[in-house]
Amino acid sequence: MKILALDSSGLVAGVAVVEDDTMLASYTINYKKTHSQTLLPMLEEVSKMIELDLNTIDAIAVAAGPGSFTGLRIGSATAKGLGFALGKPIVEIKTVEAMAYQLYGTEKIICPMLDARRSQVYTGLYTFECKEGKSMFQTILEQCAVSVTEIIDKINEIGKEVIFLGDGVPVYESVLKEQVKVPYELAPAYCNRQNPGAMGTLACDYFAQNKFVDAKEHKPDYLRLSQAERERLEKEQNAKPE
Amino acid sequence: MKILALDSSGLVAGVAVVEDDTMLASYTINYKKTHSQTLLPMLEEVSKMIELDLNTIDAIAVAAGPGSFTGLRIGSATAKGLGFALGKPIVEIKTVEAMAYQLYGTEKIICPMLDARRSQVYTGLYTFECKEGKSMFQTILEQCAVSVTEIIDKINEIGKEVIFLGDGVPVYESVLKEQVKVPYELAPAYCNRQNPGAMGTLACDYFAQNKFVDAKEHKPDYLRLSQAERERLEKEQNAKPE
Repeated sequence: MKILALDSSGLVAGVAVVEDDTMLASYTINYKKTHSQTLLPMLEEVSKMIELDLNTIDAIAVAAGPGSFTGLRIGSATAKGLGFALGKPIVEIKTVEAMAYQLYGTEKIICPMLDARRSQVYTGLYTFECKEGKSMFQTILEQCAVSVTEIIDKINEIGKEVIFLGDGVPVYESVLKEQVKVPYELAPAYCNRQNPGAMGTLACDYFAQNKFVDAKEHKPDYLRLSQAERERLEKEQNAKPE
Repeated sequence: MKILALDSSGLVAGVAVVEDDTMLASYTINYKKTHSQTLLPMLEEVSKMIELDLNTIDAIAVAAGPGSFTGLRIGSATAKGLGFALGKPIVEIKTVEAMAYQLYGTEKIICPMLDARRSQVYTGLYTFECKEGKSMFQTILEQCAVSVTEIIDKINEIGKEVIFLGDGVPVYESVLKEQVKVPYELAPAYCNRQNPGAMGTLACDYFAQNKFVDAKEHKPDYLRLSQAERERLEKEQNAKPE
């Protein structure tokens, strides 16, 4: 089984190719360039380097939200275009879940935190439970858009050690320091942002369980309304007679 | 602090740029091409993508052995050449240690295993100890060249759960199955080979502790004699009168 993984849900642009137990390639850039300048050139570069015939892949995995609205649209459009042209399905991977998955084997609580603006974060809670020596990835709280205080309350309630990661961490570091009552730490540089290799590996599991969609059906899950939609809705509601 | 990390110690070719808590870029290829075809083109590609001025890096980290003799020589020659030209020091990172470091936060025993041929593996034992919520990377057994049986004996003696990784795993999988008496698992695709991002992050710690050498002093640590050296030595010893 061979999966092409694309992630442009945040500032990071990432491309990986995973074949069974082997990561054939992984390329990640964390730099202020728009994903329309990075994602396809990176895919082309990787394909050339590993002499990848795109027709040999089984599916395209994409970070399907939440994240930057524009970033998600670029990732999904790219995945859909490729899927449609190649006749390959899309494995939709939850952005927050894939980020947590990269901390393989830790039995602490894993809390990715993406800055969602408007005092919210895209977050979720995960861990690896050890059963007979095998690390089983577990979702404690599904990805959601909540206030930082709300997720911190949940963490304090659980009362276990936590590892935080994601671009929301530098934004809310002082709030974490003030309000988190359990011992916690911040993931180091190589595992504190989106990781297309981890996403591609997770996608292999999904694909094996037939969790994929047709390219034309795929759409990202923004978890929240866009600013334009929100403002229209507010306007409509304000216009209603009491 | 900005570190350029290069790894060509095995089949994997890897380049990463780490700046403090941020991995600016990471590019990994696991494909049967010689590193002379991959490493410098990958560095050039990454530099272009993140508009990296090589003069702004503080040091060059290199997987300094053990590993493939030719691979290590290409990595070290590249690092030395760059270091000499740019006037930057070299952070020598132990290949096995850097591989273990990518399993951040696990409290299991981490056992990287590189196929060293002649019935040996390059291996070592590591773990993350949790102190007040912080994951502290610990070396249990320094990297060494031993028989698979020898390292398995050590693991059975310790008696804790183990995660294996590295290109020695597929080679010795049946031996592990037969002889390992503790619960164990194999690291998944995205964290079972060399990881330049993890190496670069570890190198930041080393650099901060002034653990680096001048480019002209650096040489890889093969851990064993090369085949040519071994054969010459055997010939000389056989030639000695009894």
